[in-house]
Amino acid sequence: MKIHIIMGSKSDMPVAEKAKKILEGFDVDYDITVASAHRTPDVLKNIVEKSNADVFIGIAGLAAALPGSIASHTTKPVIGVPVSGKVNLDSILSIIQMPPGIPVAAVGLDRGDNAALLAVEMLSISDKKLMKQMDDYRKKMREKALSK
Amino acid sequence: MKIHIIMGSKSDMPVAEKAKKILEGFDVDYDITVASAHRTPDVLKNIVEKSNADVFIGIAGLAAALPGSIASHTTKPVIGVPVSGKVNLDSILSIIQMPPGIPVAAVGLDRGDNAALLAVEMLSISDKKLMKQMDDYRKKMREKALSK
Amino acid sequence: MKIHIIMGSKSDMPVAEKAKKILEGFDVDYDITVASAHRTPDVLKNIVEKSNADVFIGIAGLAAALPGSIASHTTKPVIGVPVSGKVNLDSILSIIQMPPGIPVAAVGLDRGDNAALLAVEMLSISDKKLMKQMDDYRKKMREKALSK
Amino acid sequence: MKIHIIMGSKSDMPVAEKAKKILEGFDVDYDITVASAHRTPDVLKNIVEKSNADVFIGIAGLAAALPGSIASHTTKPVIGVPVSGKVNLDSILSIIQMPPGIPVAAVGLDRGDNAALLAVEMLSISDKKLMKQMDDYRKKMREKALSK
Amino acid sequence: MKIHIIMGSKSDMPVAEKAKKILEGFDVDYDITVASAHRTPDVLKNIVEKSNADVFIGIAGLAAALPGSIASHTTKPVIGVPVSGKVNLDSILSIIQMPPGIPVAAVGLDRGDNAALLAVEMLSISDKKLMKQMDDYRKKMREKALSK
Amino acid sequence: MKIHIIMGSKSDMPVAEKAKKILEGFDVDYDITVASAHRTPDVLKNIVEKSNADVFIGIAGLAAALPGSIASHTTKPVIGVPVSGKVNLDSILSIIQMPPGIPVAAVGLDRGDNAALLAVEMLSISDKKLMKQMDDYRKKMREKALSK
Amino acid sequence: MKIHIIMGSKSDMPVAEKAKKILEGFDVDYDITVASAHRTPDVLKNIVEKSNADVFIGIAGLAAALPGSIASHTTKPVIGVPVSGKVNLDSILSIIQMPPGIPVAAVGLDRGDNAALLAVEMLSISDKKLMKQMDDYRKKMREKALSK
Amino acid sequence: MKIHIIMGSKSDMPVAEKAKKILEGFDVDYDITVASAHRTPDVLKNIVEKSNADVFIGIAGLAAALPGSIASHTTKPVIGVPVSGKVNLDSILSIIQMPPGIPVAAVGLDRGDNAALLAVEMLSISDKKLMKQMDDYRKKMREKALSK
Repeated sequence: MKIHIIMGSKSDMPVAEKAKKILEGFDVDYDITVASAHRTPDVLKNIVEKSNADVFIGIAGLAAALPGSIASHTTKPVIGVPVSGKVNLDSILSIIQMPPGIPVAAVGLDRGDNAALLAVEMLSISDKKLMKQMDDYRKKMREKALSK
Repeated sequence: MKIHIIMGSKSDMPVAEKAKKILEGFDVDYDITVASAHRTPDVLKNIVEKSNADVFIGIAGLAAALPGSIASHTTKPVIGVPVSGKVNLDSILSIIQMPPGIPVAAVGLDRGDNAALLAVEMLSISDKKLMKQMDDYRKKMREKALSK
Repeated sequence: MKIHIIMGSKSDMPVAEKAKKILEGFDVDYDITVASAHRTPDVLKNIVEKSNADVFIGIAGLAAALPGSIASHTTKPVIGVPVSGKVNLDSILSIIQMPPGIPVAAVGLDRGDNAALLAVEMLSISDKKLMKQMDDYRKKMREKALSK
Repeated sequence: MKIHIIMGSKSDMPVAEKAKKILEGFDVDYDITVASAHRTPDVLKNIVEKSNADVFIGIAGLAAALPGSIASHTTKPVIGVPVSGKVNLDSILSIIQMPPGIPVAAVGLDRGDNAALLAVEMLSISDKKLMKQMDDYRKKMREKALSK
Repeated sequence: MKIHIIMGSKSDMPVAEKAKKILEGFDVDYDITVASAHRTPDVLKNIVEKSNADVFIGIAGLAAALPGSIASHTTKPVIGVPVSGKVNLDSILSIIQMPPGIPVAAVGLDRGDNAALLAVEMLSISDKKLMKQMDDYRKKMREKALSK
Repeated sequence: MKIHIIMGSKSDMPVAEKAKKILEGFDVDYDITVASAHRTPDVLKNIVEKSNADVFIGIAGLAAALPGSIASHTTKPVIGVPVSGKVNLDSILSIIQMPPGIPVAAVGLDRGDNAALLAVEMLSISDKKLMKQMDDYRKKMREKALSK
Repeated sequence: MKIHIIMGSKSDMPVAEKAKKILEGFDVDYDITVASAHRTPDVLKNIVEKSNADVFIGIAGLAAALPGSIASHTTKPVIGVPVSGKVNLDSILSIIQMPPGIPVAAVGLDRGDNAALLAVEMLSISDKKLMKQMDDYRKKMREKALSK
Repeated sequence: MKIHIIMGSKSDMPVAEKAKKILEGFDVDYDITVASAHRTPDVLKNIVEKSNADVFIGIAGLAAALPGSIASHTTKPVIGVPVSGKVNLDSILSIIQMPPGIPVAAVGLDRGDNAALLAVEMLSISDKKLMKQMDDYRKKMREKALSK
């Protein structure tokens, strides 16, 4: 099983890094690509249609069309991460307010980590080992929180 | 496989109905419950912990804590649907802006339909028949859009 | 010369009607199509790439990706009209906050009329007759305003 | 009589410090704990249910569910302090827009000081000595303001 | 013990009615007055200073200065209820964003009911019988929620 | 003729300085005082009622009640200057959204300079010399703008 | 002395009526004109430059440039009234956020009444009789508020 | 053919520089002027009316009346660039929310580059060579995006 992380721009890398770190911690396979819904729409289409990923993560700021654009090319689950900037409500609303029929799973501003955790949770539905890892992760997070 | 729809209040039923209609169209099993993160937190905890659902959908308005509260009791994927009211940014931001470690997959305002489609997409990761149904659904939506 | 009006959904028709009325008043040729950036991205791509229009007008609400999506498939000018709904800042920000390199000319909420006037102004750059018509239109608007 | 300050995360400490300083100035007993509504909901429930505090102060940012979650486990007064971040309207609206039946007393962004003063005012209802201290505090604040 | 409800305008009565209904249910004594922070500041001052209430509830819309103005004349706890209108963020922010030193306990938009419950919770700190009533109220609310 | 500048807090001084500089440039007499609508309401009332100023300028941030509070104690024109902070819409809306009957003249965020110019314009209604100075000021501003 | 009310559009008349009613109550002379900053800028310029008014009131919605445009043609005080619509923050921010050097006195959304009262207050600076009327008006408002 | 860039203030130069760089890259002739809608309205009017430009670009922050003001003096296409500041929604909404009849083509916050690209697209309607250059530009952007 595999996750495909797509960033709208190289400048979104710090948010993607949060996702990578989580996926590596769970030893989940992933691809990572820069592809813009606006600058390279056909490349994005190709990448999405040819990807063997089970879940996509789209990371973008401003009028963040990327996650919705990914979702328009696949029926695999798509997670959208709004990237912070000067307005913030722009990327949040551009990602969450998808029209009926084409869902995107929006997570919080700059929350690449939560996007990856959500993707792992999706994979865990049919992967008992991964579900066990996720439960352990949650327990460790809890213990770490309590030890403070 | 099963989806569990939880509403924060009976008044959220019109949004839940949109989710039900989609799930019935896909012949996906679901439970539907009213349980409040604030009025009956222990009941909510019990419902979530005892549920055999693979995906949860939490529907709530105002300071919409329900989806995040469900997510705090499970590592199954949780989808959050903000319900419209006098402010709207309240339920949107309360659901999408989850802290690191506990993801919620936020969909658009009143988008019970997209929440259900996203849940089916998650189940489809390991269910080829359902994935086929989802592809057919997308094609029909496309044909319907084109026939207009 | 021709304008191509594309709506994301049939429900955007009242806003498109305002544009049609202006274009007919100027006797400017136009096509009008329903095509969704999310539900029928390939059809949208085809429509845009095969269109012989000189200017595009994209009309959409919610996470209004349509105008940006049109702009990603053409270097002709694209005008975006945000459609009103429960949030309004969603369609406004989704259309105006385009990333560098792919411009969209955003007009006001539900302003199909201004989108059409802007399109005619663009055509007028190289069409003296149309420019004259536009000057006459502005004068009549002025006289109408003064006669009140 | 006692106040219980609960932070959602250690990073909320600077806001909690403002509350501590006020409570120490009034010589009011307090507990201070880090407990997350999302990461450790059962621990939070235990802490709240076993606490002998008369008033709770919940400090949290983002989708700030903490104060509402405390309120779901007690009928003691709960004061909520939204913590500033990249959006600010998220924590403000998540804390103030509580549903009917479960009140939270919201104070301003990062206003740990006002949360503590409000808590002392609540205790003063039945504690004449504390009410006297509060009146003196207000007078000193007034004098300090006038001496400037 | 007594609660004093002050409305900025007679038009705020529907919100005040929600508070009255709760207080009558708890058999808690209350006064109810219309007094404007802007139109009758001296009357408001007199009312607050001469009131023998233990808790004040200020209900106001627009630039809702009333709760803060009450708080400036007393060290008793003051609860502020923002009233809905054309903007909504105006009354919410005008009530919650109090400066350091003069706290107001803000509740949700039009939430006169929660203001009253919060006031009763404050009185319950030193009134075991009232605390018992509040616990019963919460239990009944819970049972009513579960019976649905 | 005289202008009275009142700040809610000493921290508003940089905004007040902009007003002072303008008034000194016009050689208009002014008083400047720190007085809080919330911390020293009676002092504020006294200052306003005893002031021989023709126009008041109130400068405040957060839930900026000061200009409205000044206006409640006088029928002289009151100009309100919202001070910037973490939210900004709070002070803007708290100052501009005054209820019917008690007007405040709101100027832009941190615009102490425009508050002073507006005050001078008000005085100029009956002071031809000042009106001449204001016209000269405008002309100089224009020339300075053009010389760039 | 005279007030000049200028509306951006005939549809702003209900807000202008509130201003008229106040001015007639005070027996203050006024002119009332429809003139658009965008549709008839030269007419607006002429009207403002030839007007013998002492104070201008500009009433406009959307990107409400009218009050600022009036202010650009006169050094008389200009009061701006934002008119409500689908967004509301548009007209509020377009009127209040004037650049340094050209002040506009912004009043609340649809507050034609407060604009007129503010204009009368400005005239009262040099008109003792009018000031007396204004004091009487305030007293009557107060009595009316108290008699309720 | 020519583009005329007009800034409201010299401080908007960094945004204008982005436009200049694009226009120079396309070898498109341009004028650049500082002229304020509020401080020098007559100069602005003269500049616009005497300009032989085919397209105008207006760059302004705060209550950004400049692009609308340019549009009121010409029927040539006008592109508006909102400049960022403390509020951001002010310049965005002031530029995009133009009334019916006088269109402005709004681009994103600080997007001088996109304004210039949009202007070139407009000129390209009747200039095949420029259209070819624009297609090449888009291809290079695409190649640069892919090479990363």
